[in-house]
Amino acid sequence: MTFASPASASSRPAPPRVLVVGSGAIGSLYGAVLHRAGAEVSVVCRSEVGVVREHGLRIRSPLATNGDLSFRPAQVLARVEDCAEPPDVLLLCTKVLPGVDRAALIRPAVGPRTLIVLIQNGIGIEAEVARAFPEHTVVSVLAFVGVSRVAPGEFEHKAYGALTMGDVPHGASPATRALATLFREGGVPVTVSEQIETERWRKTVWNAAFNPLSVLAGGADTRVLLDTPGGEALLRELMAEVCATAAAAGHALPPELIDQMIANTQAMPPYRNSMALDWLAGHPLELDAILGHLLAVAAERGVPVPRLQTIDTAVRMRLAARG
Amino acid sequence: MTFASPASASSRPAPPRVLVVGSGAIGSLYGAVLHRAGAEVSVVCRSEVGVVREHGLRIRSPLATNGDLSFRPAQVLARVEDCAEPPDVLLLCTKVLPGVDRAALIRPAVGPRTLIVLIQNGIGIEAEVARAFPEHTVVSVLAFVGVSRVAPGEFEHKAYGALTMGDVPHGASPATRALATLFREGGVPVTVSEQIETERWRKTVWNAAFNPLSVLAGGADTRVLLDTPGGEALLRELMAEVCATAAAAGHALPPELIDQMIANTQAMPPYRNSMALDWLAGHPLELDAILGHLLAVAAERGVPVPRLQTIDTAVRMRLAARG
Repeated sequence: MTFASPASASSRPAPPRVLVVGSGAIGSLYGAVLHRAGAEVSVVCRSEVGVVREHGLRIRSPLATNGDLSFRPAQVLARVEDCAEPPDVLLLCTKVLPGVDRAALIRPAVGPRTLIVLIQNGIGIEAEVARAFPEHTVVSVLAFVGVSRVAPGEFEHKAYGALTMGDVPHGASPATRALATLFREGGVPVTVSEQIETERWRKTVWNAAFNPLSVLAGGADTRVLLDTPGGEALLRELMAEVCATAAAAGHALPPELIDQMIANTQAMPPYRNSMALDWLAGHPLELDAILGHLLAVAAERGVPVPRLQTIDTAVRMRLAARG
Repeated sequence: MTFASPASASSRPAPPRVLVVGSGAIGSLYGAVLHRAGAEVSVVCRSEVGVVREHGLRIRSPLATNGDLSFRPAQVLARVEDCAEPPDVLLLCTKVLPGVDRAALIRPAVGPRTLIVLIQNGIGIEAEVARAFPEHTVVSVLAFVGVSRVAPGEFEHKAYGALTMGDVPHGASPATRALATLFREGGVPVTVSEQIETERWRKTVWNAAFNPLSVLAGGADTRVLLDTPGGEALLRELMAEVCATAAAAGHALPPELIDQMIANTQAMPPYRNSMALDWLAGHPLELDAILGHLLAVAAERGVPVPRLQTIDTAVRMRLAARG
């Protein structure tokens, strides 16, 4: 395994230095996974810096046989600017929200050889970062995981955890493959894809259908959405609109995908997705990342998406009413 | 003016006897209007019979110069069965909800010459009553009014009040015209229509678009719905789907209707519709009357209504999640 870090003088290579920006549920869990794989993991956590400095990150997880993936980060920084030396790997795990310039956020910690890794949701969310760092490899990662924050600095990883990753806009560099190996050593399954953008569309088929609907239903779980009369039919029609948009954008998805996703979701325990949890917590929603960008692609390509448009606008009405 | 009541022996005709079934906001207000016009008005009010017997129906209203339309009903009945003598006019003003057999509800009070009058929302809501009373004239009435319950037996009429009425399924009998005159004498403008079904479709253009969306937006008012980015466009598209369904059902509406309704709503003060108020109060919603029946007509006639279908199912998900 090789990262872009300078070769160590010792017989063993130095462990890769990782900086996690955004130590919410996703950042904390995958930081812990890399720590477990031997990396030196530091975190930037703005609001909870005190509690994390005192107690570390506390993570209950089925990945560890004792159910505990808690660890003490090498450094706990209050701001990205406080990072003294650029890391080998920068893991960006913030939510993708309008008005947040993610390139400006990470720039103070990005060195010439830093591998920039985005573990974030949505369609077309890499371009802004890739444009800002044209000389860098940007790795785009999808997490299939159920993990949530239960208290400051404290997280519960309930299920799943697999990652899919690849280079932006496509391909899979040696550094990306090395990162995949490191995550696997930490205990999570990883798929390396040379067409990560297609994988993003695939994941969005589920997210764009279920996430906004769960908000409209007041934070409802998958069981409520599927069991409401007309619910499964609507979810399938929303998914079909995403697939049509993906195909028009050059990312044709397999025709059996919708059947598979519905069957898998039926088989899972009732599940509240991240947007539903954000809604219930009063947090901002990743609506542009998951739906807004997709609608822009559909408009550009002339794909009719009346149902997706309807739920997007209805959620925006709901946000406006919440104030 | 003539109703079906037997001619009085005195020189003046006896005042028409009216029974209001469903003494919520609509029934209480229009009962008060008929009382003011000289009718003998009795009411059936199941849960609030005690307070209404003690204090009468208390109604603040701009229709009265002193702002007070309160009155003491001739009789305050706890059940329709307690009506000793069939009225000349039976005003049915309950909500139209699944599982409520409205024909069975009113049957104990319907005499051979009782005029059956429905002041209720929705599409296709008269058929069940008309079928049950094939020998009777059934009058279908639309109320354009802002009135709400503020306490047991106490109501606030805020604005508007006009009625549109006609016979089911079409036409306008002398009895219906006499009823219109009585309402006018009570102080509200009345339009008699020989095509009341077309008028119902017209009103539903607004209701089917605004009402369910306001529920999805958490009880939002018209201003929030119109001002959300994409909101007015979605409302227009929903209205266009209703118009297409109406046209397919033989009730073509004028092409300028949507522009007019949007302009009128923009000009009104922010307004929470009845479904939004019901939602906020935790009451059942008239979703079938306002949207479900309409979707059945669209399905039967092959009219594509993807946006109406989406908001209908999303509201049902929300109701399922509320439990």
